Amino acid sequence: MRKVYLDNSATSFPKAPNVGESMLNYINNIGCNINRGAYYDALDAENTIFETRELICDLFKFDKPENVIFTPSITYSLNMTIKGLLKPGDNVIVSSMEHNAVMRPLASLKGLGVSISQIKCSNLGFLNPNDVEASIRPNTKAIIMTQASNVCGSILSLEKVGQLAKKHNIIFIVDCAQTAGFLDIDINKLNADILCFTGHKCLLGPQGTGGFLIKDNIVPMINPLIEGGTGSLSEYEIQPNYMPDKFESGTLNLPGIFGLNTALHYLNSIGTNTIKEKELYLTKKFIEGIKNMNSSFIIGSDLLENRTSVVSLDFKDLDNSIVAHHLNKYYGISTRSGLHCAPSAHKTLNTFPHGTVRFSFGHFNTVSDVNYTIDALNKVIKNNNLKERTY
Amino acid sequence: MRKVYLDNSATSFPKAPNVGESMLNYINNIGCNINRGAYYDALDAENTIFETRELICDLFKFDKPENVIFTPSITYSLNMTIKGLLKPGDNVIVSSMEHNAVMRPLASLKGLGVSISQIKCSNLGFLNPNDVEASIRPNTKAIIMTQASNVCGSILSLEKVGQLAKKHNIIFIVDCAQTAGFLDIDINKLNADILCFTGHKCLLGPQGTGGFLIKDNIVPMINPLIEGGTGSLSEYEIQPNYMPDKFESGTLNLPGIFGLNTALHYLNSIGTNTIKEKELYLTKKFIEGIKNMNSSFIIGSDLLENRTSVVSLDFKDLDNSIVAHHLNKYYGISTRSGLHCAPSAHKTLNTFPHGTVRFSFGHFNTVSDVNYTIDALNKVIKNNNLKERTY
Repeated sequence: MRKVYLDNSATSFPKAPNVGESMLNYINNIGCNINRGAYYDALDAENTIFETRELICDLFKFDKPENVIFTPSITYSLNMTIKGLLKPGDNVIVSSMEHNAVMRPLASLKGLGVSISQIKCSNLGFLNPNDVEASIRPNTKAIIMTQASNVCGSILSLEKVGQLAKKHNIIFIVDCAQTAGFLDIDINKLNADILCFTGHKCLLGPQGTGGFLIKDNIVPMINPLIEGGTGSLSEYEIQPNYMPDKFESGTLNLPGIFGLNTALHYLNSIGTNTIKEKELYLTKKFIEGIKNMNSSFIIGSDLLENRTSVVSLDFKDLDNSIVAHHLNKYYGISTRSGLHCAPSAHKTLNTFPHGTVRFSFGHFNTVSDVNYTIDALNKVIKNNNLKERTY
Repeated sequence: MRKVYLDNSATSFPKAPNVGESMLNYINNIGCNINRGAYYDALDAENTIFETRELICDLFKFDKPENVIFTPSITYSLNMTIKGLLKPGDNVIVSSMEHNAVMRPLASLKGLGVSISQIKCSNLGFLNPNDVEASIRPNTKAIIMTQASNVCGSILSLEKVGQLAKKHNIIFIVDCAQTAGFLDIDINKLNADILCFTGHKCLLGPQGTGGFLIKDNIVPMINPLIEGGTGSLSEYEIQPNYMPDKFESGTLNLPGIFGLNTALHYLNSIGTNTIKEKELYLTKKFIEGIKNMNSSFIIGSDLLENRTSVVSLDFKDLDNSIVAHHLNKYYGISTRSGLHCAPSAHKTLNTFPHGTVRFSFGHFNTVSDVNYTIDALNKVIKNNNLKERTY
């Protein structure tokens, strides 16, 4: 059976060419640790890791490679910066589209006395930046926002939010999980103080990679959540305070970063604009096909403006999870159904608690994939074996 | 030039056969995320991850695969359990041989009101368990100890410490960084409540893998340091409290765990006892060679009892780092010189602050590697170009 992978928002597949081969090469032919032994192979490996920091800088128009921190995933990036920064008594502003990688750490901090102001987005998933300004309090320490919803693909107007953050001297943390590698992102245009990214979605790198970029003046304000051996200042039992060691303890995921390095070279050769154009063309074709079927299925905006290549559908009186299951079982199409780790977003979009079937297109999908999926969906929803919703 | 890799304590090289190929296979042919999409490929991948938990259980004689938590490295395992457990007012007991992956998180906690009792080991790096019992206070919450020194290879008598911990109802956290895959470890015989391991040292798996095993009754006592999407209970913005989701947020390092799975199958086929015997045979040959040269070079015990395959040398009036550099430059031998992220251990062994040159033998080293290294060392230390110590 044909296979069509439409879960690129969870993790992209396939990866950029030779990502796996770079990892294999690292494991089989390099293999050593870095920042510890001073032998030649270790120094060579260190150069590749540093070059990867520079490639991340290029991507986000940043100029401090030593302030590019590698983490195991963006979930770790968000926890490390959020929990490292906020103290009891602080207020933080978020949107109603945040992922649980932001909301669950904040829920813990709430229990310790951090207050959370959540800005309700429109029922199409868009943010009104004026609502952010109205929520700023004297004790607002940070604004933390996703650049795009992982549920419906809406892109939030973060440039305006960044201007507000700067004006009010509030730390601005941006979650680029859904946008890094898709949007052309400039950390300075966003006025972002911390920008968190994942390596395994639009960057087309391996799972186990991610990180954050942090401006110099913010570094002293973040306590390291994870501490340990750094191969530096080994005479001290306290964490070094210089970068990147302050936030990178223990052995890095070196094969993963080698894979990410290859992915970033590929992205550079293609350009994020080309990637975005192609993915949005597929999204356009898909949305057109759904509109021909039943436009009320589409959750969030059905336009191409300010969106990523994520489209969530709600099949109204059908059980969404069974639609997704039939797409997979009978047509080999992989989607994700249910709640997408973002309960407030589903409430905003009126898809709580039943959730949606999410179709997320990636760089390697084709128009043929879209046509096949539309055709399959037409057949699946006409199949009277489908159960009606019981909830 | 011949290459001889003797930095297996930092990370083993080469890895078990086909570790890199498993990672490549995951990246190129599987690729999807787990616990999110319910499509067949994701379920297959999930099975491999669960099987890896079972293989870890087999290794440590544990019976709860869902209580095997995967982390990016043992540094994360130690931070997550130490910082998740200890509260202001608690006392914790450690040995003087601990790595900075234990001491640096504790240094932060000390600032918050956790007190630390450090048991001084002998100048050969061994622990007297009676000293542990003498240090127990009414507020002692945990004993955290490495099973073997990463500096001199001494193995600590943790079975006796575990009995004390059990007797006094104290939580026992064991750092197996240097022993997992080398010693035959039984979590119950150790009376360990939490056992932290790394995947990329003696387990012969890839960097970016590690984890911890935790007994059921301890789970509620540990707050999750990292929280986020788990693909479970997605209707809630609080972290699930069941296992393994409580401690595994965000996308796991799936290619890494696939590689670790292959390494664990290899280890199973060989058996830790065979691995230990071979490595100790190499260690014996090396120690004999050094004794013929100058037995005072050896730091810690020069016997084979209660040791791993780590041997640290201190070349007395020569600059250790230049000895290591010449071994690498002229003979292709990779070692690690200096302080090995364990300042207290170096103080205990009287090698602070100048450190040592550490030779750590691995499963794939040969007697020929040892003979070549002894021969190279003889030549290097007779070379009158070597600088004398300036410190």
